[in-house]
Amino acid sequence: MRIGELSAETGVPVPTIKYYVREGLLSGGERISHNQVSYDEEHVRRLRLVRAMIETGSLPIAKVREVLAEVDDPKHDLDRRLGVVSKALSQTRRPLDEPAPELLREALAVAERSGWTGISPLNFHVRALAEVLERLRMLGMEAVIERIDDYARAAQTAAETDIELLAGVREPDEMLETMIVGTVLGDALFAALRRIAQVEFSGRHFKGDAEGRERERPETEEA
Amino acid sequence: MRIGELSAETGVPVPTIKYYVREGLLSGGERISHNQVSYDEEHVRRLRLVRAMIETGSLPIAKVREVLAEVDDPKHDLDRRLGVVSKALSQTRRPLDEPAPELLREALAVAERSGWTGISPLNFHVRALAEVLERLRMLGMEAVIERIDDYARAAQTAAETDIELLAGVREPDEMLETMIVGTVLGDALFAALRRIAQVEFSGRHFKGDAEGRERERPETEEA
Repeated sequence: MRIGELSAETGVPVPTIKYYVREGLLSGGERISHNQVSYDEEHVRRLRLVRAMIETGSLPIAKVREVLAEVDDPKHDLDRRLGVVSKALSQTRRPLDEPAPELLREALAVAERSGWTGISPLNFHVRALAEVLERLRMLGMEAVIERIDDYARAAQTAAETDIELLAGVREPDEMLETMIVGTVLGDALFAALRRIAQVEFSGRHFKGDAEGRERERPETEEA
Repeated sequence: MRIGELSAETGVPVPTIKYYVREGLLSGGERISHNQVSYDEEHVRRLRLVRAMIETGSLPIAKVREVLAEVDDPKHDLDRRLGVVSKALSQTRRPLDEPAPELLREALAVAERSGWTGISPLNFHVRALAEVLERLRMLGMEAVIERIDDYARAAQTAAETDIELLAGVREPDEMLETMIVGTVLGDALFAALRRIAQVEFSGRHFKGDAEGRERERPETEEA
């Protein structure tokens, strides 16, 4: 197909497609004549993936390029490649400082209490968890840390579903693609569901609370 | 305390503190003499909150200012204020396009199947969910959508814990602060836990898979 058809099929404007090709996110089409370049279904799929990462995932161009390089690199076993991609997708913020050893132990203990016994203390996500624990503690949010096993239980349900979905895909490259989309969109999906559930439970607990506060104000001011 | 002590207590460098004051994220200290400004515990707490939002939450300065304005605005009831803040925190990406009505119905149906019956179809997070559904479908990830009730179950566990934690805080302003930190760090916390659980289940399912692929390669090439 021509670039105009590729644009029509994916909803990505022609100048944006050309930009992605220049940036190395999409291979150029096959030149079939002096003034015509042809694109195929592979371009359609890759372009949709790139756009999802950039638009929904808010990943910067350089990160998308890095992730795609991993997708296209066959040298690791699948577990390792999944891990590399998972780490790359999580590093959109900033490099982590090395957390204190007791925080790493605390993070690993959460995993062990949850029955996740195959986790290395050097794993990137254990360090990410340790960093979150440190921030929560700095902000006096010990109460959140006390409920961490409940969050781990929710995370287990989500991750089991994630991996069951991956295991349902046969072709390794498609599996990595599913993982990228699943991670990027999966976070957005879960965040939306969590917020909707929060709205539900907030409504049950706190609706009309302003009046409650109004009534209690004299008592509060007295304190 | 002096600005140097505020810096020492929070770990935020003095020039950064001055920048936050100029940007309106932190009120200036009280001038107690010609060349001395005094800061108190309120500044310590606010400064830690600002830093957590900027560093761990990756929120831009303008968004932090907006969120703090909501925290300090007493005009809504608590459920409403929680909702406004929740929406502001979710809008770090880009304004949403209006999703198609059938996608909104589909998103709302997920909530209803989960027993979340108090949700408006106009709710911002329902639109966010509809947008994720649209992206997933564009990318051919119907399989993820088919498992959405499993993700909703995980989200319910997380959100119940979120709201129980909020309900444990008595002072409304502290509750909003807990919600901001809980939302920003709560996403990072859940993402880290989910990734760690994924590593565990990926290891159980896919370790040594490269060999498996090696063995199957002739068959694959034949196809």
